[in-house]
Amino acid sequence: MLFKNITMMNEEFVAESGKFVGIKDDRIDYIGDRMPDEDFGEHYDGKDRLLMPAFFNAHSHIPMSLLRGYGENMTLQDWLNTRIFPFENQLTGEDIYQGTLLGLAEMIRFGVVSTTDMYYHGEEMCRAILESGAKCNLSVGTVCFDDSEYCQLKSYEAAKSLFENYQDVNNGSLKIDLSIHGEYTSTPKVVAQLAEYAEESGMRIQVHVSETKEEHEGCKQRREGKTPVQYLDSLGLLGSKTTAAHCVWLEGEDSEILAQRGVSVATCPKSNLKLASGICDVPGLMAKGINVAIGTDGSASNNNLNMLEEIKFFSLIHKGHTLDPTVITPAEALRAATGNGALSQGRTDSGIIKEGYKADLIVLKTDEPYMKPLHNITNNVVYSAVGTDVCLTMSNGKVLYKDGLYLTIDIEKVLWNAEQIKDRVLAELKSL
Amino acid sequence: MLFKNITMMNEEFVAESGKFVGIKDDRIDYIGDRMPDEDFGEHYDGKDRLLMPAFFNAHSHIPMSLLRGYGENMTLQDWLNTRIFPFENQLTGEDIYQGTLLGLAEMIRFGVVSTTDMYYHGEEMCRAILESGAKCNLSVGTVCFDDSEYCQLKSYEAAKSLFENYQDVNNGSLKIDLSIHGEYTSTPKVVAQLAEYAEESGMRIQVHVSETKEEHEGCKQRREGKTPVQYLDSLGLLGSKTTAAHCVWLEGEDSEILAQRGVSVATCPKSNLKLASGICDVPGLMAKGINVAIGTDGSASNNNLNMLEEIKFFSLIHKGHTLDPTVITPAEALRAATGNGALSQGRTDSGIIKEGYKADLIVLKTDEPYMKPLHNITNNVVYSAVGTDVCLTMSNGKVLYKDGLYLTIDIEKVLWNAEQIKDRVLAELKSL
Repeated sequence: MLFKNITMMNEEFVAESGKFVGIKDDRIDYIGDRMPDEDFGEHYDGKDRLLMPAFFNAHSHIPMSLLRGYGENMTLQDWLNTRIFPFENQLTGEDIYQGTLLGLAEMIRFGVVSTTDMYYHGEEMCRAILESGAKCNLSVGTVCFDDSEYCQLKSYEAAKSLFENYQDVNNGSLKIDLSIHGEYTSTPKVVAQLAEYAEESGMRIQVHVSETKEEHEGCKQRREGKTPVQYLDSLGLLGSKTTAAHCVWLEGEDSEILAQRGVSVATCPKSNLKLASGICDVPGLMAKGINVAIGTDGSASNNNLNMLEEIKFFSLIHKGHTLDPTVITPAEALRAATGNGALSQGRTDSGIIKEGYKADLIVLKTDEPYMKPLHNITNNVVYSAVGTDVCLTMSNGKVLYKDGLYLTIDIEKVLWNAEQIKDRVLAELKSL
Repeated sequence: MLFKNITMMNEEFVAESGKFVGIKDDRIDYIGDRMPDEDFGEHYDGKDRLLMPAFFNAHSHIPMSLLRGYGENMTLQDWLNTRIFPFENQLTGEDIYQGTLLGLAEMIRFGVVSTTDMYYHGEEMCRAILESGAKCNLSVGTVCFDDSEYCQLKSYEAAKSLFENYQDVNNGSLKIDLSIHGEYTSTPKVVAQLAEYAEESGMRIQVHVSETKEEHEGCKQRREGKTPVQYLDSLGLLGSKTTAAHCVWLEGEDSEILAQRGVSVATCPKSNLKLASGICDVPGLMAKGINVAIGTDGSASNNNLNMLEEIKFFSLIHKGHTLDPTVITPAEALRAATGNGALSQGRTDSGIIKEGYKADLIVLKTDEPYMKPLHNITNNVVYSAVGTDVCLTMSNGKVLYKDGLYLTIDIEKVLWNAEQIKDRVLAELKSL
């Protein structure tokens, strides 16, 4: 495909107009100010359109889209015990497959081409991810409350099997990560063992860290005064291949440790607000040079996977919270949702528009009244745009979504199946 | 028009499916579970659609859409002095007319039928508002730094003339309010005089109150220890026809005074975050029984007029800020953006779907992947929907927007003019 005479967000997230961008196979092959000599196939008219790097979602639980809007305005424990856990308990592998397709359809709609995910039924999720053409760093969350052999094996057996079968398939689209669900759902032995297996295998690690005050303070009580960061660090879990999600309640040296170890932080602004977990000190983390990326978390606590909306929350809440309007520039916000996310997934040839980089791209409409006048398109994308302005999503050079059409997903079927699963599970819960 | 077999948000903001809603002239004439005998004209197919009350925006500066994205990431004083004031200084009446059309086009796109506005060039704004078919409580902001006769006259002469010419024209669409820009931009004499004129004329009052810490603390220094609420109250400005915008830094008895006087509060969550003004204690105000409505503020500090997005911020930030997930239910959020807004404008026969009420309605698409599955449509509208899901906007029974078409505004012309004005003003500023 050749994007013709289009405005393009460059590496510094400054817009350049009148560009020609040619895609060959899965790569950006040509960027120039005039028509290339080479034939790149289909022409895409750039009038009133903006070409941007696609979004990389740094933390999600894709199939939880099935629980969207099911439990609201409840305390965390109520929500988990009376809504989330019972519903999840009824889900089959096939349900998870369908839920994954639903979540991926939404991500693709909103310009997300790659997501870091922690859930269960990994095989079924891999199947859905490969079908969709999207990318994923997938992990099966390790939850082990004791040191039994069964628990120790479970901590990486599932990951090992997925890793052997799916690592880097579909031209690197799928990557298998390891994960520890959290400090409070595992033992030190399990954490240390997983860290060791990550070291051996080269796999990346996902972990929830200091999401709620209760978790953070509870950890200090359980682990001889250590914060979750200190505790996980003491067991070797934190390194440059680790993504720590949330990090709302960091204190003392925590952020310094994350910076020294090269850990990426996946901040989930909307989910943290909605569950009343709190507000992460993103400006502080960025000041320490930490790679901060943006995650949507799952749709049960968000309740969508709309990255432009997440960027808006990310951009605004820290200004209001710190009372400093200069924190987090529009370029920093866009980088967090693109390049930083790609980096946190080990996708170092993705996340910016540059010759030789992966063709992971989106196109935004810019001719709506809320995008006018055009003083500065970077500002408008961050502060004014709406998720549905995404009108094309391309992953590895392949168009996944264009102008209302989902090219890899049978959207009517997926939406119908989601309703069926919901109705069935609710009926089952009623009959219990 | 007859909305046929549609899901409808009832007075409690609970969805009822399979409803028939007939519109006659400017009113909701029929609500029932079956086809009415009467012929209401055009049929609207309700499949996968939700009928809701339209939005009422409680605080805005419509023509500031011309400044969207012009100054970002700056301290308030820098922003005002180097960006906003110089740009506004170059705007002509015709520019304001065009800017008003631009802002109204956006509001109509996002389902806002009525807005409470404070700006200048009132005649030109009235012209644009009447053409658009939208409603407005319009005021010309009073700014008077001394007690000269000129200043005292200015405080209500413009309003008086607008009131005589435009009050309740176009079937009550246009209402002329009085306004005091704020405590720090007027004298006690001017405030008292305006309060008196409001009493005589029956006009409503708009005023900025405790938006920033600097304003709030400065007032106490300037006004013998009185907070802005205490000061304005002492001059008779606060009553049941007053809307106080922002109210971020209230303290002590302030909220009690607002409650006792029956003042409506227009909270502007996104603008307050973006300008780093802070976070209003909305749950506290609601607990006191205050009528809290939602405002977008102007597009220079928002940067859009997307009410569904504003509702999302309103719904989420207070949970995260108070660490209590149970504050502000979805129904409360929707009521704040509809009925409460209408009430703050004195439009007591608007803002809910009820027979005999004004036909101020919107239709939302509900068949997008981010709205599925449908556990609870109220939750989904508040937490998952996107502003562009609005596919029909009706004011006083007249369709203003439908499926991409603006029926009262020449949108291409308005967008083109906005660009021209921006280019001209920037060139003028450069040549100064």
